[in-house]
Amino acid sequence: MRCAGFAIGMTAEFSENLKKLLDDTAVFATLATIGRDGQPHLTVIWLERDGDQLVYSTTVDRQQYKNIVRDSRVTVMIVPPGDPYVYAEVRGTVTITPDAARELPDRLSHKYTGKPYAEFNPASANDGERVIVRVTPTAVRGRL
Amino acid sequence: MRCAGFAIGMTAEFSENLKKLLDDTAVFATLATIGRDGQPHLTVIWLERDGDQLVYSTTVDRQQYKNIVRDSRVTVMIVPPGDPYVYAEVRGTVTITPDAARELPDRLSHKYTGKPYAEFNPASANDGERVIVRVTPTAVRGRL
Repeated sequence: MRCAGFAIGMTAEFSENLKKLLDDTAVFATLATIGRDGQPHLTVIWLERDGDQLVYSTTVDRQQYKNIVRDSRVTVMIVPPGDPYVYAEVRGTVTITPDAARELPDRLSHKYTGKPYAEFNPASANDGERVIVRVTPTAVRGRL
Repeated sequence: MRCAGFAIGMTAEFSENLKKLLDDTAVFATLATIGRDGQPHLTVIWLERDGDQLVYSTTVDRQQYKNIVRDSRVTVMIVPPGDPYVYAEVRGTVTITPDAARELPDRLSHKYTGKPYAEFNPASANDGERVIVRVTPTAVRGRL
């Protein structure tokens, strides 16, 4: 079922076009988390798809991580490169798991840069503890 | 002054690079407003700069408008086309004024499409009442 509105406690599915975009394209997404004062905090993320979940990596010392620990609701905007009038707004809630082996940043780095993460971003050697964030969508809106 | 963190009650200025990007490029932005339940609502917008304010157009029947009437805080993500690792996250508060003559959508349409708005989007004849939204920044983060 593809939900057009709020669907609290339910999950929503991705369209075939959105799945294809996520699987075939190194599409950057904008992630909105909820700050302590309620104002949205926006960052740009790499991501991959696992079924009808979005998956991204972050570190425990970042504001976005502190935000999702406090409030698990996020909203993600996905816009195809070169086609800004077609987009998907994915609302969902997150689950967080440790990534001690740092496998996800490496896999995403290969997808987005063609290189291991340590080569693309040598400063990442100083990164805080890595976690895997999975977004289970409650609603998907847009034309994608 | 360019603020790196929260600056409640203060205003923040745009860097020269951000001003240039906004003035010279038809850069699409992601707008985050705060939904009734506190979850961020994301949309893609056209925008222009007026001094250190961001200016965009919306209609009174849209969710994003209802959100900013309820809570005037917004966050805007601006990413240069083709350079996703450099971005500006602008947090601010909005003021809303009527745009009975619908001048702003026309000016933005020329910037983004090279056409009058009615020509680019004939369905806009059925648009709800137009308003001009000005974002006064309280903080600007990122590398732009």
